Amino acid sequence: MGAAFKNAGHRIVQVYSPDIQHASLLAYHVGAEAIDKLEQINPETDVFIISVKDDAIGGLAATLTRYEKLIAHTSGATGLDVLLNYTSNAGVFYPLQTFSKTKELDFRTVPLCIEGADISIEKQLTELARTVSNNVYKVDSEQRRVLHLAAVFACNFPNYLYAAAQRLLAGSNMGFEMLRPLILETAQKVQTHLPGEVQTGPAVRNDEFTMEAHADMLENEPELKKIYKLLSQEIIKNNNPGPRHG
Amino acid sequence: MGAAFKNAGHRIVQVYSPDIQHASLLAYHVGAEAIDKLEQINPETDVFIISVKDDAIGGLAATLTRYEKLIAHTSGATGLDVLLNYTSNAGVFYPLQTFSKTKELDFRTVPLCIEGADISIEKQLTELARTVSNNVYKVDSEQRRVLHLAAVFACNFPNYLYAAAQRLLAGSNMGFEMLRPLILETAQKVQTHLPGEVQTGPAVRNDEFTMEAHADMLENEPELKKIYKLLSQEIIKNNNPGPRHG
Repeated sequence: MGAAFKNAGHRIVQVYSPDIQHASLLAYHVGAEAIDKLEQINPETDVFIISVKDDAIGGLAATLTRYEKLIAHTSGATGLDVLLNYTSNAGVFYPLQTFSKTKELDFRTVPLCIEGADISIEKQLTELARTVSNNVYKVDSEQRRVLHLAAVFACNFPNYLYAAAQRLLAGSNMGFEMLRPLILETAQKVQTHLPGEVQTGPAVRNDEFTMEAHADMLENEPELKKIYKLLSQEIIKNNNPGPRHG
Repeated sequence: MGAAFKNAGHRIVQVYSPDIQHASLLAYHVGAEAIDKLEQINPETDVFIISVKDDAIGGLAATLTRYEKLIAHTSGATGLDVLLNYTSNAGVFYPLQTFSKTKELDFRTVPLCIEGADISIEKQLTELARTVSNNVYKVDSEQRRVLHLAAVFACNFPNYLYAAAQRLLAGSNMGFEMLRPLILETAQKVQTHLPGEVQTGPAVRNDEFTMEAHADMLENEPELKKIYKLLSQEIIKNNNPGPRHG
């Protein structure tokens, strides 16, 4: 995100981290000053962006309010209220993406979810967001919590299932590279379709013979067998809806 | 696959289906003759490729043996033995990819998994495969069964989880398009990394507070809650391996 701001022409004044090496690494990339003490903060800034562990946001915000500048956090799982405890000049700037230190990505495609304590803050953050991304959404704290949860289903869990598939292949002397085109195509399909339109596999066909055979092959992988059965049941249920109660 | 063969300069002689409309549609695309009766088969061909439901492969093979040509099926879940019951001139030509009627894909990236009843058949099918794909693998029947199972974990289940995420978003008036960049990036990451290297989310951090909050949000989605708990447990276990017994 730092690089995206810099490339869009913004000035990143300082990067703070209690670990000066962390601060220096990012600061170097974005041409900013690295600091590891909050007393070194330069108040000449428009926005403080807090990107730390969820439970550290409030404490940091408490320290920053003295500068009377806009404070925004970037956490999906944290409400705006954590900042509102300390200041009304508060907002959220949540990038809905999975980041890694080793892979660059095109920030203009990253959905940025904006919330502000009032309309003027919302407008300010939205304008800032549009300088770095084409996908800017107004999302309140409750929606953001749902997004964060949905991201676990859309990203963290699929990645775990990729690892499970890799383990199955390794057991028969096959490499993960065989699955890469399939994984990519599966994700590309839902770029233009809804997942329900492109569901394939034995469960959606209710192909009991194949599902039985697969379960038998998982005798030595009881956890994967449990996952296989549960997800298959859900796919069957959602594609052959019976009467719903409750 | 038909289009890929044609584009590589092969001649597709006929397309058979008991439903002449199905046969005609594909035959038209590949410049072949459409037939709906097995008696109309033109024996002037090098290879018969059987791409039908798994339980119909044997019956079709039994009919085709009279022409004494190479017969290959394309099923991941079916052994070579189903053909060997009828002929020794048999092989498998299994494309490890998810196909849809509405989305074209670059067939050269599709992994083709080849098996032959003998070395000469294997060589013949491998050469054929290399004319349409850059990813040709020699895979025996047992390995192919594992691949087919792994593909459920790498493709069918992730797609179901995308649908679950869409449902969660819809409950808070948000659209699936917000998740598309995340889904694509998750799949792109494992094109150059192994999934275990890029696992993110509350479970891999063992962030119990967030997992509790997520579980609470799923009160009205008991099935998704079960999936959430099971997959989170597995991610925790696989990233914090305790002692293993048995």
